[in-house]
Amino acid sequence: MYKLKFLVSGFLVAHQALALWPAPHSMETGNSHLAVDVEKIAYNICSASNQILENAVKRYSELICKEKFSPPLDYNITAIKTSGSFSTLDISVENASSELSIDTDESYSLNISDDGYASLLSKTVYGAIRGLETFSQLVLYNDNHHVIKNAPVSITDKPEFAHRGILLDTSRNYYSISSIKRTLDAMAYTKMNVLHWHIVDSQSWPVESKFDPELQAKGAYSKDMVYSHSDVTDIINYSKNLGIRVIPEFDMPGHTYIVGMNRPDLMSCMDTQPLWDTHAAEPPSGQLNIAKPEALKYAEDIVREYSELFTDNVFNVGGDEVNRKCWTEDQFVIKHLKDNPKETVETLIEKFYKHIYKTIDDVKKTPMCWEETLLHTNFTLPKNSIVQAWIEEESVPKIVDMGYRVVASPYTSSYLDCGHGAWLGNMPKGNSWCDPFKTWMRIYTYDPYVNITDSAKQDLVIGGEVALWSEQADDIVVDKLLWPRAAAAGELYWSGPYQPGTSTPRDLNEASIRIAEHRFRLVARGINAEPTQPLWCIRNPGRCNLPPAAPKSS
Amino acid sequence: MYKLKFLVSGFLVAHQALALWPAPHSMETGNSHLAVDVEKIAYNICSASNQILENAVKRYSELICKEKFSPPLDYNITAIKTSGSFSTLDISVENASSELSIDTDESYSLNISDDGYASLLSKTVYGAIRGLETFSQLVLYNDNHHVIKNAPVSITDKPEFAHRGILLDTSRNYYSISSIKRTLDAMAYTKMNVLHWHIVDSQSWPVESKFDPELQAKGAYSKDMVYSHSDVTDIINYSKNLGIRVIPEFDMPGHTYIVGMNRPDLMSCMDTQPLWDTHAAEPPSGQLNIAKPEALKYAEDIVREYSELFTDNVFNVGGDEVNRKCWTEDQFVIKHLKDNPKETVETLIEKFYKHIYKTIDDVKKTPMCWEETLLHTNFTLPKNSIVQAWIEEESVPKIVDMGYRVVASPYTSSYLDCGHGAWLGNMPKGNSWCDPFKTWMRIYTYDPYVNITDSAKQDLVIGGEVALWSEQADDIVVDKLLWPRAAAAGELYWSGPYQPGTSTPRDLNEASIRIAEHRFRLVARGINAEPTQPLWCIRNPGRCNLPPAAPKSS
Repeated sequence: MYKLKFLVSGFLVAHQALALWPAPHSMETGNSHLAVDVEKIAYNICSASNQILENAVKRYSELICKEKFSPPLDYNITAIKTSGSFSTLDISVENASSELSIDTDESYSLNISDDGYASLLSKTVYGAIRGLETFSQLVLYNDNHHVIKNAPVSITDKPEFAHRGILLDTSRNYYSISSIKRTLDAMAYTKMNVLHWHIVDSQSWPVESKFDPELQAKGAYSKDMVYSHSDVTDIINYSKNLGIRVIPEFDMPGHTYIVGMNRPDLMSCMDTQPLWDTHAAEPPSGQLNIAKPEALKYAEDIVREYSELFTDNVFNVGGDEVNRKCWTEDQFVIKHLKDNPKETVETLIEKFYKHIYKTIDDVKKTPMCWEETLLHTNFTLPKNSIVQAWIEEESVPKIVDMGYRVVASPYTSSYLDCGHGAWLGNMPKGNSWCDPFKTWMRIYTYDPYVNITDSAKQDLVIGGEVALWSEQADDIVVDKLLWPRAAAAGELYWSGPYQPGTSTPRDLNEASIRIAEHRFRLVARGINAEPTQPLWCIRNPGRCNLPPAAPKSS
Repeated sequence: MYKLKFLVSGFLVAHQALALWPAPHSMETGNSHLAVDVEKIAYNICSASNQILENAVKRYSELICKEKFSPPLDYNITAIKTSGSFSTLDISVENASSELSIDTDESYSLNISDDGYASLLSKTVYGAIRGLETFSQLVLYNDNHHVIKNAPVSITDKPEFAHRGILLDTSRNYYSISSIKRTLDAMAYTKMNVLHWHIVDSQSWPVESKFDPELQAKGAYSKDMVYSHSDVTDIINYSKNLGIRVIPEFDMPGHTYIVGMNRPDLMSCMDTQPLWDTHAAEPPSGQLNIAKPEALKYAEDIVREYSELFTDNVFNVGGDEVNRKCWTEDQFVIKHLKDNPKETVETLIEKFYKHIYKTIDDVKKTPMCWEETLLHTNFTLPKNSIVQAWIEEESVPKIVDMGYRVVASPYTSSYLDCGHGAWLGNMPKGNSWCDPFKTWMRIYTYDPYVNITDSAKQDLVIGGEVALWSEQADDIVVDKLLWPRAAAAGELYWSGPYQPGTSTPRDLNEASIRIAEHRFRLVARGINAEPTQPLWCIRNPGRCNLPPAAPKSS
């Protein structure tokens, strides 16, 4: 352990230049340090103009001018000797298109010479945005001056996974637009690229509807807690400028109690009490009545309205935790099944999904859903669907074995709300159903390829998400619950679970130094991320580790 | 459950006037609602003048003018019909002394007539401060107007326990003075009255020392992370104005690694690596070398300096988690014991404590310590000591059985940092040693009298604390970790664990409505407290409870 400390101290300066988060695919560094006059950096866009790129350059040049960030490990170092000064960043993008989708190329290369010139090359504007983030992390503050350390720096970078997301649930509790935008900023600082907006659920409907304005009138917590169509468009534009896609989720046919506030006629098992658990995973119970053609039509109207509002190609229709008893005990369903002896609840479910997925196809979107739609119904899911795994790690190989693309978010390493005790009332000793708390280390060491050896099947794992379900979260605490733990997923899905070119897991000790630094950077950028350790441990890497097991006496 | 909802809805308006936190000892209410012009309330101090009281009146009158707080359950109610208007609060205090100690009487009575006059009577200025807090919680905002509901209101109130505290650890990570003051504000909103300032520990020494300035020069995380003597005095004055005592803890002889940064000659087992766990409960290891007279003298100097700086009568010298191996494996101690065959590590420990407690007696303070000093050493603790229990609930009856006063803080229901996973490095699946997370319900339902039936012994239970150990906490996240959970302890120790005049535990359902409201009040007052439930559940009390167990089929 003393050796580790020595190593870390010995490489202290070199190490700091390496402390990017997420770790780039490859990086070479030298021994020259460059002074940086941040006000005078010339940012030249050397390719066809593009508004998103211009906005990004402006954003990062302002950030770099404002930021005075010293890594926590540098607390004790004195002035770094510079051998030159940095002047110019040339940016070249092959394709000036602003299209952003799952197929967008985010690769880039960044070369900083030891005489102060840098070039950033990328295939797309979004690759350039990732490179600008990297560049911003290389500009540090030391002894009242900005520096770029360890030039020449040569970085070639690209993501391991195309889908690197955060699920935010804005229904159980509401989030302000500024909190959502701050979350998007932090995602960009971490090279994450999907906001999975779990926008509605049983508890509230916080989004404007044009086809049925009573939906939000009766479903939002208040008039002030509604995302209007123009708010949504504003958030989508904001995201796109950061290279982040917004995939909305309109979860159906379960998790829809709130629809019944407006249209009780469309519903089954509305707010069963006190035994709500017979009909739902959490209160209040309530599902669209799948025996009613009007309910199918209403679900279709939801898909039609919001697939237009949300411009991303992927549209998520949920499909998790569907409760059969809600329908088998519903008088209308019972009568319907009696009158139609060939039908069952399972055929009704199939019919419901057929209707919904036909609509998604009509509106030319790619469907996304929770794993139950594929694994626990008789419905034949379209082959282009993206399936999200959450129940167990083993769901991921199951889904790819069936030939579907998968987004990994097993709750065991992805649910950020776990470990916070019961939120249900009247439970003096209640724990969290998904204990324990998911530490950044648990999130980071999850392997999305577990039990998938075939490389074609590995290609079906398009990425992963961490999820913030909001029963005990809102505006006030969102930063702390997301950061820096979501950043652990950010690196997992950008840099991949293995050390480059191997199948050896990444080094947790090395990562712990960088994620601690990233946490302080997030705080400096206005994100209220939580600390990972006592500052003493962060400054003394390796000295707060779990002790090795004592040798057993024979 | 429908019945409960009906009850709650039926009493909605009446209920809101009852929603004080903590619950008063007794309260009677009427049916008149009074309009309040907050700018025009006359606050008359009808007794001898006192600066602390005048400050409190100014503070609360400003707060009441600024605050526009509507309870979350009132989201749907329209304008309340008022039958009069509130004009005057007369405040009378029997004793104009500003002395604040464990013996301070905090009782008060508050009577608001239905014609708009109120009187607040108390024995001390601190009782008046508690009454002003209650008064502030009675002024609500409804339909763009302030109101006091359910007059006449008659409240008689007093605390069940004299010591109602929060332990804040400012060593593992540092807290800014503004965070400490904000925490004190929130304590006052909750009628808590002790800041147990765990100011130093092994990781850092963030407080100025006059007798050895190298202590903070080498022990603080940085020059910016030092509480100067005048900062401490400022915090003590700020606290006193809120009726909060500041009890400092200088934990010895364990938890003192940081002293060795300056005086390695005084120490044993400094930073044993990698097997730090042989010598300490957490890294870095290091204890004062109890075989060295200079170490005893140094400990004495610490007590002398800080017992003068911290003006409260109680001075805490820690004494937890003392590691014997640290000394039995120390070469100096080994030689000392060889040279002094009548001595053992246990007699050295005894001698150390004799020296320290003699010093505490010299400086005329009441000693306070962790339970190990009493229960796990041969030292005869002075009878006037206050002993803090943390290891198990059963420690509380053990301590009172030995005739000592006890402050209850069993980690099982009092440690706010638990359930957050491992902070030690390199632990991919590491959990928290003190899992699970302590929910407000777990904290609230702890009974400090458990297994103590004798009333004289019950009197020795002087109160309790919740503790925020800061391995994974700092400035950025402190509010969320403390609130509203510390408020659960606030009511437990103010209102007592039982329904008034009974030995029936308080009603968790009823408390859940009030603590949800208190959480929103704290947020409105600038405290970033976390939400307890989805807003839907808060607005629909009883409907998100754990379902009753289904009847078993026979």
